[in-house]
Amino acid sequence: MGRVVTLGEIMLRLSTDSGVRIAQADNFCAHYGGGEANVAISLANFGHDVYFASKIPDGLGEGVVKHLNRYGVHTNFLLKGGSRLGTYYVEAGIGERAANVIYDRAGSSFAEMTESEWQKEELFNNVDIFHISGITPALSSSWKKTTISLIEAAKEAGCKISFDINYRGKLWSQKEAGETISEILPLVDYCSAGKLDALYLLGIPEATEQENELVYYYQEIRKKFPAISVLYSTKRTVVSASCNELIGTLWMDDHYYESQNHVINPIVDRVGAGDAFSGGVLHGILAQKSPQEMIDFATAASALKHTIHGDCNQFSEPEVNSFLLAGSGKINR
Amino acid sequence: MGRVVTLGEIMLRLSTDSGVRIAQADNFCAHYGGGEANVAISLANFGHDVYFASKIPDGLGEGVVKHLNRYGVHTNFLLKGGSRLGTYYVEAGIGERAANVIYDRAGSSFAEMTESEWQKEELFNNVDIFHISGITPALSSSWKKTTISLIEAAKEAGCKISFDINYRGKLWSQKEAGETISEILPLVDYCSAGKLDALYLLGIPEATEQENELVYYYQEIRKKFPAISVLYSTKRTVVSASCNELIGTLWMDDHYYESQNHVINPIVDRVGAGDAFSGGVLHGILAQKSPQEMIDFATAASALKHTIHGDCNQFSEPEVNSFLLAGSGKINR
Amino acid sequence: MGRVVTLGEIMLRLSTDSGVRIAQADNFCAHYGGGEANVAISLANFGHDVYFASKIPDGLGEGVVKHLNRYGVHTNFLLKGGSRLGTYYVEAGIGERAANVIYDRAGSSFAEMTESEWQKEELFNNVDIFHISGITPALSSSWKKTTISLIEAAKEAGCKISFDINYRGKLWSQKEAGETISEILPLVDYCSAGKLDALYLLGIPEATEQENELVYYYQEIRKKFPAISVLYSTKRTVVSASCNELIGTLWMDDHYYESQNHVINPIVDRVGAGDAFSGGVLHGILAQKSPQEMIDFATAASALKHTIHGDCNQFSEPEVNSFLLAGSGKINR
Amino acid sequence: MGRVVTLGEIMLRLSTDSGVRIAQADNFCAHYGGGEANVAISLANFGHDVYFASKIPDGLGEGVVKHLNRYGVHTNFLLKGGSRLGTYYVEAGIGERAANVIYDRAGSSFAEMTESEWQKEELFNNVDIFHISGITPALSSSWKKTTISLIEAAKEAGCKISFDINYRGKLWSQKEAGETISEILPLVDYCSAGKLDALYLLGIPEATEQENELVYYYQEIRKKFPAISVLYSTKRTVVSASCNELIGTLWMDDHYYESQNHVINPIVDRVGAGDAFSGGVLHGILAQKSPQEMIDFATAASALKHTIHGDCNQFSEPEVNSFLLAGSGKINR
Amino acid sequence: MGRVVTLGEIMLRLSTDSGVRIAQADNFCAHYGGGEANVAISLANFGHDVYFASKIPDGLGEGVVKHLNRYGVHTNFLLKGGSRLGTYYVEAGIGERAANVIYDRAGSSFAEMTESEWQKEELFNNVDIFHISGITPALSSSWKKTTISLIEAAKEAGCKISFDINYRGKLWSQKEAGETISEILPLVDYCSAGKLDALYLLGIPEATEQENELVYYYQEIRKKFPAISVLYSTKRTVVSASCNELIGTLWMDDHYYESQNHVINPIVDRVGAGDAFSGGVLHGILAQKSPQEMIDFATAASALKHTIHGDCNQFSEPEVNSFLLAGSGKINR
Amino acid sequence: MGRVVTLGEIMLRLSTDSGVRIAQADNFCAHYGGGEANVAISLANFGHDVYFASKIPDGLGEGVVKHLNRYGVHTNFLLKGGSRLGTYYVEAGIGERAANVIYDRAGSSFAEMTESEWQKEELFNNVDIFHISGITPALSSSWKKTTISLIEAAKEAGCKISFDINYRGKLWSQKEAGETISEILPLVDYCSAGKLDALYLLGIPEATEQENELVYYYQEIRKKFPAISVLYSTKRTVVSASCNELIGTLWMDDHYYESQNHVINPIVDRVGAGDAFSGGVLHGILAQKSPQEMIDFATAASALKHTIHGDCNQFSEPEVNSFLLAGSGKINR
Repeated sequence: MGRVVTLGEIMLRLSTDSGVRIAQADNFCAHYGGGEANVAISLANFGHDVYFASKIPDGLGEGVVKHLNRYGVHTNFLLKGGSRLGTYYVEAGIGERAANVIYDRAGSSFAEMTESEWQKEELFNNVDIFHISGITPALSSSWKKTTISLIEAAKEAGCKISFDINYRGKLWSQKEAGETISEILPLVDYCSAGKLDALYLLGIPEATEQENELVYYYQEIRKKFPAISVLYSTKRTVVSASCNELIGTLWMDDHYYESQNHVINPIVDRVGAGDAFSGGVLHGILAQKSPQEMIDFATAASALKHTIHGDCNQFSEPEVNSFLLAGSGKINR
Repeated sequence: MGRVVTLGEIMLRLSTDSGVRIAQADNFCAHYGGGEANVAISLANFGHDVYFASKIPDGLGEGVVKHLNRYGVHTNFLLKGGSRLGTYYVEAGIGERAANVIYDRAGSSFAEMTESEWQKEELFNNVDIFHISGITPALSSSWKKTTISLIEAAKEAGCKISFDINYRGKLWSQKEAGETISEILPLVDYCSAGKLDALYLLGIPEATEQENELVYYYQEIRKKFPAISVLYSTKRTVVSASCNELIGTLWMDDHYYESQNHVINPIVDRVGAGDAFSGGVLHGILAQKSPQEMIDFATAASALKHTIHGDCNQFSEPEVNSFLLAGSGKINR
Repeated sequence: MGRVVTLGEIMLRLSTDSGVRIAQADNFCAHYGGGEANVAISLANFGHDVYFASKIPDGLGEGVVKHLNRYGVHTNFLLKGGSRLGTYYVEAGIGERAANVIYDRAGSSFAEMTESEWQKEELFNNVDIFHISGITPALSSSWKKTTISLIEAAKEAGCKISFDINYRGKLWSQKEAGETISEILPLVDYCSAGKLDALYLLGIPEATEQENELVYYYQEIRKKFPAISVLYSTKRTVVSASCNELIGTLWMDDHYYESQNHVINPIVDRVGAGDAFSGGVLHGILAQKSPQEMIDFATAASALKHTIHGDCNQFSEPEVNSFLLAGSGKINR
Repeated sequence: MGRVVTLGEIMLRLSTDSGVRIAQADNFCAHYGGGEANVAISLANFGHDVYFASKIPDGLGEGVVKHLNRYGVHTNFLLKGGSRLGTYYVEAGIGERAANVIYDRAGSSFAEMTESEWQKEELFNNVDIFHISGITPALSSSWKKTTISLIEAAKEAGCKISFDINYRGKLWSQKEAGETISEILPLVDYCSAGKLDALYLLGIPEATEQENELVYYYQEIRKKFPAISVLYSTKRTVVSASCNELIGTLWMDDHYYESQNHVINPIVDRVGAGDAFSGGVLHGILAQKSPQEMIDFATAASALKHTIHGDCNQFSEPEVNSFLLAGSGKINR
Repeated sequence: MGRVVTLGEIMLRLSTDSGVRIAQADNFCAHYGGGEANVAISLANFGHDVYFASKIPDGLGEGVVKHLNRYGVHTNFLLKGGSRLGTYYVEAGIGERAANVIYDRAGSSFAEMTESEWQKEELFNNVDIFHISGITPALSSSWKKTTISLIEAAKEAGCKISFDINYRGKLWSQKEAGETISEILPLVDYCSAGKLDALYLLGIPEATEQENELVYYYQEIRKKFPAISVLYSTKRTVVSASCNELIGTLWMDDHYYESQNHVINPIVDRVGAGDAFSGGVLHGILAQKSPQEMIDFATAASALKHTIHGDCNQFSEPEVNSFLLAGSGKINR
Repeated sequence: MGRVVTLGEIMLRLSTDSGVRIAQADNFCAHYGGGEANVAISLANFGHDVYFASKIPDGLGEGVVKHLNRYGVHTNFLLKGGSRLGTYYVEAGIGERAANVIYDRAGSSFAEMTESEWQKEELFNNVDIFHISGITPALSSSWKKTTISLIEAAKEAGCKISFDINYRGKLWSQKEAGETISEILPLVDYCSAGKLDALYLLGIPEATEQENELVYYYQEIRKKFPAISVLYSTKRTVVSASCNELIGTLWMDDHYYESQNHVINPIVDRVGAGDAFSGGVLHGILAQKSPQEMIDFATAASALKHTIHGDCNQFSEPEVNSFLLAGSGKINR
């Protein structure tokens, strides 16, 4: 199968049991995750050869290594050092009440890197896809530069570039994000971007009179960044924090594809659902699925992720496929 | 902010995990609660100076003190002594199956009090609101008398009187309750009472041809008890034990107000939701919110309570407000 | 009340917490169950004198004995010996994702029995109903024969025969099942069988133009097997693994009866719901309820089972009755 | 084997996890126990036909029934009714810190019985041993009388009487206890009594110059109460709450026997260790073991009880025997 | 009783279950603690009026407030703001294996304070004792200055100064610590300091030929810092991480006092044991106990702390006293 | 570092919480383990390149893969297929009470292999050490042959052979074991064997008048099997199931070495302690430690294993070394 490198920050998530507030909690569940690490695990589950590159401290970093290894992700490019592992605390949302997240990620080993510490020739040697997200350049001005230079090096080494915009308003402004991302997208082959990204980051004017406005946004993004061959995002209807509906959408070969609607009720863990979707799309590309198969598979993978605790998808390709085939909720015995 | 005294019984609740019957249980979750204690905690969370008056035994009573202190409720008027702490056991309801509650509250330190053991001058000194409920006079014939004499003393000391009818058929008959409550209401300023209270306890004839029958009942209650300036209750649609819909209603300044409808699905813990609502209304009064703000805030506070384990609301005023502003279930990150 | 013998395999179920995959699990919840054992427990809860006959190994078998005793099922006919206790592993289904079940039941003490090891005179002495299911003859060719000879002996001893077809595609083919079951049904008085059984096992042609096709299938089954006096099954609508709708149906005295619809949301534990239904029907027969009461009771019992962890129903007759009377999800306090 | 009736109170024990104080506890472990119920379970584990007689309320009482049934104790004589189930709360001792126990047992269904509500002919029909303890007459003045009249009826019906003095200073004074027990002992065949009982309850003067003072006390007790054929107690050295040493002692056929010393470190659960010892002695009597075997077996059973959570011993006769044979702590694999 | 202010950092401790490594942990137990906060809680438990001054962020800081309030510590001087709450991760020691601690405390709201943000007149108004430790000046060079100026202000306001040297090699060098502490001690009344502090921080030459070398060190410290009226420390014998022996020692009125030896086996939680000891000494001073009573009480309090999870002592004065009276591990029932 | 292949069976262990019996258990902790898999993990923790060869079924086998990967063990030679994963159930020993183990391992995918299914050239390519134990030939007569042929192939490919006798009386007789092992040992380089193996399996006559009898047994084993260059075993004193003392012993270069005595109190998990010891010895060999360093390191690794839940050692080389340096139980902070 394919060979993939993903690069980004990974954090320790501490979450309370459902229905318990952080200030009341006697214990926290521990999970490790980060967008690019989650994509790495999804792809490893689907049978690819995947490397996750990041930087973690000694001590707490040991849990990160074991987490990635457990799913078969290679940790050769996981640097050790720096001062701390970013953490964040989560009170899961329930019904009308949204999740409450407290970040404690400043000053992490990864965020404080001032330049690439990898041997680029080694890192990108024989790699099919290099995947990175918009969270990384948002971490510091060094990372803005380093992100771009890493993408350039990967491109040069012959990798396809996969980029998930993943805009986080707590990390940078729309203006700052828009500028940096506009520098990155000309280099990108596969991009996760949706309507809000188009409007607020990429400066695309609002759709008028479109039946399916996403077609319009995808077309406009491609006009601006013609290097992008695959664009994808989800349409998520937030009925409540416990119930969402999800449709995956894809723009490829100048056509628009979408998956069936998934009613996700109840949601076990919302974190990482977008990464499971990206992982599914990249797998579709590597496995040369048809666009419709690709978007069906990716959306099913994302729907499954919502039913599992933790940041990463834990379903293999055959499991995602048999989920696609089965009707909702039927037992086979 | 305001200074409030609430007075009533507090019990230890022992509940099984969801889906486990009491007779099967290997362990019980422990929570402390009682209507007036829960209101006290809500008001302390909203920044008021709150005292909870009750009587608890040594030994198990220590947990009660720590529980109240944790939320900043003052325990100066928490008497120590008597024979036991009332307890009750709960199997939470799920879907069609209602909760199963077994009370073991007879003979508690509080229920066995035969007269007020507080220095009334101290208890009501400088207090804005004295809050008490219909559970207290239901505990014994002594408590019928003591409740009234406490309310009279509070009134005399210049407190506003808040009373939650909170009728419990397991403690007294409708007739007995109706008689006592009719003695109390002439002294009451703020009262939680709804249609069923009007019909079965206060002897108000059934509404005919009313578009909004609650307006009728509120008006009739006020006719009978003109001292009451604020009347409030919730309209709760019990879809199942796991899903309720909730609208808060308020009668104030001769007008009727109601909140938007809250779909609470799933319900984490139903206990204390009414107290969270009362706490919200009293906060509205103390903070001089407009009637519409008051009922919106109180209903939101009650909706939030359903999403948290334990008897008491654990959300601050800013948290309730930002819940009101946000759409259902959206994450901010 | 009645005296009942049920006979079959009982296994140890190891299930993960909701939202946790088997390969990730640090611990498993343990429950014991099997179709006939679950029916035995239901009937013991309803006040009957019930014996469960099976074979279990020493060691792990001790947990089986304690499980059955806990609910008052007699274990006089529980043989000890053989090599192992069958086990199975369950990842509960959630929303769209179905449960995942891994069986490890081959070679169990019960499955490896080559002939009846009970004293038939003792086993069936004074017994009103002998209950057995289609899982037992599916276990081996010895069990095909032994099942039939046990039923014949029971019949001869004057027992009514209750049979739950309970077809499991993982254990035998439709053809094999159809042949064996067709040998059994002429001896059966009370039978749990539905549309799929009629079509795929009993060779009944598909209904045409029927308003209520179940009436047709029940009539056809009775035509073929006129000894059967009570036929019953459920109509289950699988909205998702977390939400099902359930209607019980009954054919008796040449009439069709069905219960109200139960919306089961959320489902706590789906396993054993069919056995709780059978237990309810058999209780109705023993207690000489009217057919409508019988099907209402049995369906309520099954609906309640879905709200409880473990394989067996844990509600007494008065509890099922008060559930039938109450509206959905109301608390009584 | 034998047929035994034990009679007494059974309570719900709520205990915190080790190292957690009651006032801090978010949950409690639930166990059911009482001296006579624990003896009943021990004897049922050893293969006897055992009936536990008591009175329990509806509701919480259901857990008591399931607890006793689980171990095969018959509940035919378990009356239902009265107002409540006694409970008590335990913070386990650790190291130097002793256990902290809070009783909430007053007013229980059993304690409030004013006379025997059993049919004595049925209760004692064909019974080998009737076992009761000094806790029962301590509960009320009615129970003082009822205890004696029950013992007399049992004696008359041909039962041997087993009595465990089990003095509790929180329930009655030494004087009161001494008087009642002195009325009981003339009827008793097997008695658990030690040095402290002899000195403070039975008025036996302190030993002087005895090598083994227990021999002296046992002889003196027998002089006063010659009907007693078996006297037994343990010598317990409390190194700390986590470590005890235990020697069983027995006086029978005018000889003194003692077991080897058991070093119990760590203690998992101290509650019920005395009952496990009594159960072992009574089993020895019923199984006609030699005195030395009897005391070795009973002390081993008691030592094993210390290693298990809950009030009752959970080891069968073969398990106690193989524990006696094995060296300390060796694995067999 | 007395009025006390303690001031320092408080952190969130995340610890694994015993026998589980951090890198393996699926969940962490959460406790809040810090030397001065722990002393505050001890003194509040003993009945004093105690204020804890510190600075904590919004968000996670809410748990700190609830923790302190739970034990009745006043939080009026708990500032809100800054960037983060210090955290640390603990794998408890077992037997020969020592605890493993990973600190993540840099950049905390408290550590980043650059000057006192309290109104000193308010803070020290009417205060009997101001307690602070050597950890605070170790946090930054600003804190070195601020610590001294706070102590000076307290002194001036008439407070007694209590100082716990609490040397942490991970925070500063012996040289740095020695210099700062030598500036502080001339202002200190009550000081926790032991042999190692004398030797390595205060430059006192090693004892020669002393029977009890502690007497020598205490005398030498007093010679250097004659303002100190009470000096105390523990002699701890580390048998293993699970078993320690503990003797409290005190120098007061030119005499040496020591407690009996406490064998602490097993240790439930070692953290905060020194703070429980300091809290006991300060209570002795405030309650004007005799020196021998004081050291007995303080050592008993510390021994009890070892038997409880969490950083703070949870025993009241009567509980410590009855522990002192009882023999080791005896139950009273 | 080195390249190692270990080969054997791996099972799922289901164990109850301490103090809970299997028949009572509501849940089981899940761990994966097997002698050779545990050695593989130890060596991977110490930095070697390790492959574990075995055969596991689909389904439950997925947990085995994740377990091994988590610690960095390569699973290239982990075959998929066959019928089941062996399981076993454990009640941990406490104090005098030994652990209780129930095996359910018959018919596993590995045990039912009838010949090697690996490509031997691949399996042993460039491998330094091939490690296998006496459990494997005990599984079946096929495995007796296959074990020997695998060892021969490894030898031929230039691997050193490591063999742990690991005699299990439940799997084969001493005679059968002795014969097979005597065929294997002439091919073995490094062997874990002790006094009991020498006496009962290898037919070496009992030592007479030896000061250190182990020296005699090691010498005699080497006389019989001169190919063995390293012989090792532990001297374990079983004080109780909760407390053991442990000395490692080694025979190498015709000299005897032993480690210091480790007092392991309490024991958290005894399983896998021998494998941690073997892993330590093999690491010593690969890292060319001196014999004394080797035995000190291996015994420390084994002592550490006793303090951790699960079958495998989880300490890195630096962690074992710093444990060796530190005194017992000291915290570094």
